Amino acid sequence: MADPLDALRALMTSHSPPLDALVVPSEDNHQSEYVSERDKRRQFVSGFTGSAGLALITMSEALLWTDGRYFLQATQQLSNRWKLMRIGEDPGVETWIADNLPSAAVVGIDPWCVSVETAQRYEHAFAKNKQKLFQLSTNLVDEVWKDRPPVEIRPVSIHPLEVAGHSVAEKLEDLREKLLQEKTNGIVITTLDEVAWLYNVRGNDVAYCPVIHAYAIVTLQSAFFYVDKRKVSTEIQAYMTENGIEIKDYGSVDLDVSLLGSGKLKSNGAHGVEENGKDVTGPVENAAEETKNNRIWIDPNSCSLALYSKLAADQVFMQPSPLALAKAVKNHAELDGLRKAHIRDGAAVVQYLVWLDNQMQEIYGAAGYFNEPDGSNTRKHSNSVKLPEVSVSNKLEGFRAKQEHFRGLSFPTISSVGPNAAVIHYSPEPSTCSELDADKIYLFDSGAQYLDGTTDITRTVHFGKPSAHEKSCYTAVLKGHIALDTAIFPNGTTGHALDILARTPLWKNGLDYRHGTGHGIGSYLNVHEGPHLISFKPHARNVPLQSSMTVTDEPGYYEDGSFGIRLENVLIVNEANTKFNFGEKGYLEFEHITWAPYQKKLMDLTLLNVDEIKWVNSYHAECRKVLAPYMNEQEMEWLQKATEPISVKEVS
Amino acid sequence: MADPLDALRALMTSHSPPLDALVVPSEDNHQSEYVSERDKRRQFVSGFTGSAGLALITMSEALLWTDGRYFLQATQQLSNRWKLMRIGEDPGVETWIADNLPSAAVVGIDPWCVSVETAQRYEHAFAKNKQKLFQLSTNLVDEVWKDRPPVEIRPVSIHPLEVAGHSVAEKLEDLREKLLQEKTNGIVITTLDEVAWLYNVRGNDVAYCPVIHAYAIVTLQSAFFYVDKRKVSTEIQAYMTENGIEIKDYGSVDLDVSLLGSGKLKSNGAHGVEENGKDVTGPVENAAEETKNNRIWIDPNSCSLALYSKLAADQVFMQPSPLALAKAVKNHAELDGLRKAHIRDGAAVVQYLVWLDNQMQEIYGAAGYFNEPDGSNTRKHSNSVKLPEVSVSNKLEGFRAKQEHFRGLSFPTISSVGPNAAVIHYSPEPSTCSELDADKIYLFDSGAQYLDGTTDITRTVHFGKPSAHEKSCYTAVLKGHIALDTAIFPNGTTGHALDILARTPLWKNGLDYRHGTGHGIGSYLNVHEGPHLISFKPHARNVPLQSSMTVTDEPGYYEDGSFGIRLENVLIVNEANTKFNFGEKGYLEFEHITWAPYQKKLMDLTLLNVDEIKWVNSYHAECRKVLAPYMNEQEMEWLQKATEPISVKEVS
Repeated sequence: MADPLDALRALMTSHSPPLDALVVPSEDNHQSEYVSERDKRRQFVSGFTGSAGLALITMSEALLWTDGRYFLQATQQLSNRWKLMRIGEDPGVETWIADNLPSAAVVGIDPWCVSVETAQRYEHAFAKNKQKLFQLSTNLVDEVWKDRPPVEIRPVSIHPLEVAGHSVAEKLEDLREKLLQEKTNGIVITTLDEVAWLYNVRGNDVAYCPVIHAYAIVTLQSAFFYVDKRKVSTEIQAYMTENGIEIKDYGSVDLDVSLLGSGKLKSNGAHGVEENGKDVTGPVENAAEETKNNRIWIDPNSCSLALYSKLAADQVFMQPSPLALAKAVKNHAELDGLRKAHIRDGAAVVQYLVWLDNQMQEIYGAAGYFNEPDGSNTRKHSNSVKLPEVSVSNKLEGFRAKQEHFRGLSFPTISSVGPNAAVIHYSPEPSTCSELDADKIYLFDSGAQYLDGTTDITRTVHFGKPSAHEKSCYTAVLKGHIALDTAIFPNGTTGHALDILARTPLWKNGLDYRHGTGHGIGSYLNVHEGPHLISFKPHARNVPLQSSMTVTDEPGYYEDGSFGIRLENVLIVNEANTKFNFGEKGYLEFEHITWAPYQKKLMDLTLLNVDEIKWVNSYHAECRKVLAPYMNEQEMEWLQKATEPISVKEVS
Repeated sequence: MADPLDALRALMTSHSPPLDALVVPSEDNHQSEYVSERDKRRQFVSGFTGSAGLALITMSEALLWTDGRYFLQATQQLSNRWKLMRIGEDPGVETWIADNLPSAAVVGIDPWCVSVETAQRYEHAFAKNKQKLFQLSTNLVDEVWKDRPPVEIRPVSIHPLEVAGHSVAEKLEDLREKLLQEKTNGIVITTLDEVAWLYNVRGNDVAYCPVIHAYAIVTLQSAFFYVDKRKVSTEIQAYMTENGIEIKDYGSVDLDVSLLGSGKLKSNGAHGVEENGKDVTGPVENAAEETKNNRIWIDPNSCSLALYSKLAADQVFMQPSPLALAKAVKNHAELDGLRKAHIRDGAAVVQYLVWLDNQMQEIYGAAGYFNEPDGSNTRKHSNSVKLPEVSVSNKLEGFRAKQEHFRGLSFPTISSVGPNAAVIHYSPEPSTCSELDADKIYLFDSGAQYLDGTTDITRTVHFGKPSAHEKSCYTAVLKGHIALDTAIFPNGTTGHALDILARTPLWKNGLDYRHGTGHGIGSYLNVHEGPHLISFKPHARNVPLQSSMTVTDEPGYYEDGSFGIRLENVLIVNEANTKFNFGEKGYLEFEHITWAPYQKKLMDLTLLNVDEIKWVNSYHAECRKVLAPYMNEQEMEWLQKATEPISVKEVS
C-alpha cells in the first residue's frame, strides 16, 4: 500500500490555498477518546495505533505527538518517515508550528475534528508569525483513504431506569436549572457519553463505548436528539416523544445550531410533558422571561470548531458542560450497579487466574502462582501448545462473557508479558504478540461493560521466580496503591493534591510512572470519564473529588525493555465518618469495589509496614467473601489460598 | 484617644474628589511582610496587630480582611465598629467593593503601599461598575496619626563575604545575565531583603529583619542604592564605590525610575570595576547592543503602583524578580552558616526547656517534662512568683542572646499557654498575657538572627498530664512532620504537591490546620522568604523546590479556646542519592537542621509505626550529639533523658 503521506502532500499542494501543514488529530467529530474504525484517521496516516496522539504533516516532515503512556509503542510503530514528539518533553504542536514553519504559513485542519479550545490555542500561537489556521471544507485524509470502513447502522437501545437511577425528565429539569443559573437559553451537547447519559440511551457506534454517534441540543423549552434515523426503532421513537425529545437527522445539527443562535430553533411541539403529575416545563417557562439575551452554552473542550463557528462569538457561554459533573456524581442505583458489576467482574478475573495458573504449570512447567521454583525456573516448552498474549486475553473475555449482564469489553485488553508490560497501553496483536513466560512478569489491564456498570482492573503476576528488584518495585507500587486507597481528605481536595500519595513509595527509590493515577469510570458508559481525575497534570487542579464519584487507583512502574507493574482498583468516593470535622468541611474516603487478590509472592514483606499488611489481609478476606458465590470447588480452593492472611509476624 | 475612623472619614469627605472608600494595607512602600513601627498604619486604624491584613473604610462600614492564622486574634482585637472578613471564606476586598459600593465609587489608596499586581486586580474588578481606584498624593492615615513614630537612623553594615558566600560582583554579573536573557535594560528592585542580599549589606530598619529601607536600580552598565544617606558611613560609602554602586537619596528613586524609563539614568562613572582580574562589565557591554528597546524589569508583586506609574506600560517587563530565586537557593557558605546557627539556636532552646522544666516543678508543683502526675495535676500556686508568657519568652531570648553571633530575634516570640496556643500567631503582651499552667499545653515558636543564619523553631510541651486527645493530636502532627521530613521527590515537584504529606495523618481524624506547611528562610535575612513555599495555596504551584533551598516543616493543629500544637524544623533541600533515577530527573530529599527534642510524653506510641519511632530515635540521637558541646552537666543530663530512644517494642 502506498504511504498516505505522499497522497496527502499532493492534496496539500493542489489545495486552494496551498497548505504548508495539515493537522490530523486522533479525535472524531465529538472529540472522543475512543473512536470508530472509520474515524481512526491519525492511525491511518501514521500507523501508530495508540488512543492518544496528533499527527502533523508538512511538505518535508511528518511528526507525531503522544504522551508518556505511548512513547515506547510509538517508537516501535512509526516508520522512519515519522518523528516522535514527546508530550511534556518536546514543544507542543502549536509552538512547533509557530517556531518552525514560515511566517504566514497556512495550516489546514478539519474543523469538525478539533475543539474550540484547541483551535483558539493554535490561533493564539500562530498569531506571532501571522500563520493561519485554515478550516478545510473536506477532510483530506478521507479523500486519500480508499478502503475507509463504511458507516455501520447499529440500533439505539433504552437504558432502563432501574440501572440509570434518574429519569430523563429529572435530568432535563436539572440541566435546565443550570442553564437558567447561567442565564443561557440553550446548550449544544457534543460529547457522546453525555448525550447517552442525558437521554438514558445506549448504542454500539464506538468499540468498547456503548454510545451513539449523536448530538443533543437542549433549550429551556425543547430537547433534540441528532442521530442517523436508521438507528432508531419505533420503540425508541415513542420513548423520545414521551420524554419530550424531538429526533432529528445527525447531519442537520450544524443548521440547527445556527437556528439556535438566531433564536429560531423551534421544536415540533413535543414538550410540556406531564410526568408523575408534575409539569416539567412549569418553572422553566416562568423563568425564561428573565433570560434577556440569547446566550448559548457550549463546552470549549468538546464542541468542535465547526459547530462553534455557527454561533456569534459574543453569544457563546464557554464553560465545561454541566453534564460532565452531573454524570460523574453517581446516583444510588448507579453505585449499586457498579458494586454488583465489579463483583461479577472480579469473579471472572479469579476464574481466569486459576485457569492461567494451571496452564502455566502444564505447558511451561512453571512453579505457579503460589510457588517459587528452587533455583532458576525450569521451562518445559511444548512446540505445539503455546499461550500467546492474545489467546489468553480472549480466554479472559470468555470468563467475563459468561457473567450476567455482560455487554462487551470496556477497552482493548492489555495482556502483556515481560517487556511488553512496560508499554503502558500495550495491546497485543495476533500476528506479533509474545507468548507467556514463566520467567517473566505478566500484567493484564482489562474491563468490561455490564448493563449495571463499567469495570477496569489491573493485576500483575508472576508464575515463576520474580527477581528481588521486581518484588521491590511491585511492593512500592502496592504501597502507593494502598496509600491512596486509605486516604481521608476534606471536601474541596482535588485529585491533583492526592496524586502524590501513590507516588511517594516509588520516589523513595528514585522511581516514578509517566501517567496519572486515576480516572473516573462510567455506569455502562465510557471507561474514562471526567471531569475529575487523580493526576499531576494541571487540569486535575480544577475539580475537587465529591462524594459518589468513581475513580481508579492505578499506580505503576515500567522498566523499558524489561517489565512493567500496575495495580488498579476502582474506588467510590464516600463521606467519611471521621471522629472530628475540623472546619465543618466534611471529610471523604474511598471504598474499593474491585475484587481480585494481589499476588503475595510478588510482595517483599520486609518493605510493608504492619498497617499495610493488615490492609492486604482485610482486602483479601473481603475478596473471598464476595467472590465465593461465583467460585466452583477448585476455584474456591485457589482463592482460599490466594487470600490466606499474611502473618504480621512475618514483618520485622 | 479618639478613634482614627472618625478623623479618616472626615478627611475622606473633604478630599477632592470625595472618597467613598479608603484602602489601608498592612504593607509599607516595599510591600514588606514585617514593617517598621511608623509604617504600621493598618494596625493604627484598626487596632489589629497581626502581621497580615487589610483595612477598608467606607462612610458607613469598617472592614478588616485577614487569613486563617489570625481569625481568632482579630476577633479579640477588633472593636465592634469593625467587621472581620475571613480570607478564603468571605469575598475578597475588590469583589466586596465591586458588589457593595455604588457605581462610579471612588476608592482611595496610597500608591506607594500597594503593588502593581494588586492595584491592577482591583482596577479589573472595579471596571464592572465603573468604580475608580484613586491614587492619593498623601497618605491620609499619616495625616490623622498624631503620635506616629519618627524615622530612626540606624547604620548600614557590610555582610562579610565569609558568611555571604558570593560577592556583590558575582551577584551583579548573574543578575545582568538574567536581564540580558529577558532583553531588559534594567531592573527596579523594591523588596528590602533583595536589596540587602544583592549588595551584601544589612541594617536595622525593621524589627526582626536586618534590612535597610532602600531601593536598588541595576542596569546593564550601572548599579544604584537609594537610601537615607545619614545611615551610610564612610566605610559603606567606600565599599559601595569599590563595587561600582552609586549611593543616591532614598527620596530620589521615583525621579530615577522616570529617567530609567526614558533611558536617561546615568551613573557618575563608578563602573567597569576589575575584580579578580575579571572585567565584570565585559560580556555585558558586548551584548548590550543586542538589546533593542528600553525594557525595564519590575516584579509586579513587590513594585509599588507609585513607581510603576513612572514607566510606560509597554516598556515594562513584569515578572517575579530574578533575585528571589537566586536568594532562595543558598550557596555553600550560607548553608554552612545556617547549619551552625541552628545548632547554637537548638542549644538555647534546650537550655530554656531545662530552666522551664525546673521552674514549672518549683513554682507550680508540676510533674515536669518527663513525668505524668498520678491522677490529676496537683498545683502548688505561689501568689508572689508567677511565670507569665512574656517573662518566659524573655528568658528564652536571654539564652539565645548568649550564643555567638546573636543579632536579635527573627520574629516576635510566640509563647502561648492553652487556649492562646490556638491563636496561630499569638504574641503575648505584658499586661494581658496568661501565665504558664501545669495543666495546659505550652507552645513556643521562636527564632533568632545570627550573623551566619536565621532560625525558626516550634516545639509544643506539657509539664503535667496531657489528655488522651491532646496526645492523639500531637502524634498526628508529629506524623505529618515526619512524613514531610522523609519525603523524596523528583526535581520539578512543588511545595504545593508536597503539602498534603503533612496533613494526611490529621485528615484521618477529620482534623486540619488553616495555614501553609512551610516557608523559605533567609541567611541572616527575613524569616519568611519566597519564592517557594509548601502550601495548598495556589501560588505555591509556581516554584518547584530546588537543591540548596531552605524550607520549614511546620504542621499544626489548633482547637479554639482550648489548645494548639505545632512542630517546626528548618529543612535544607538536598540531592537524594536514590538507588534509581527514573526519567533522569534527579531526586531531592530534606536535611533537617533544627535541633531540639520532641516530648515523648505527648506521643501516643500506639499511633506511631516502627519507621516513625526509628525516625524519632535517630533524630534524638543526633540532637544529643550536636548539642552536647553546649550543655552544662545538668543540661546534658536532661538532654540525655529527653533523647533516650523509645523501645520499638513499646509499639504494638
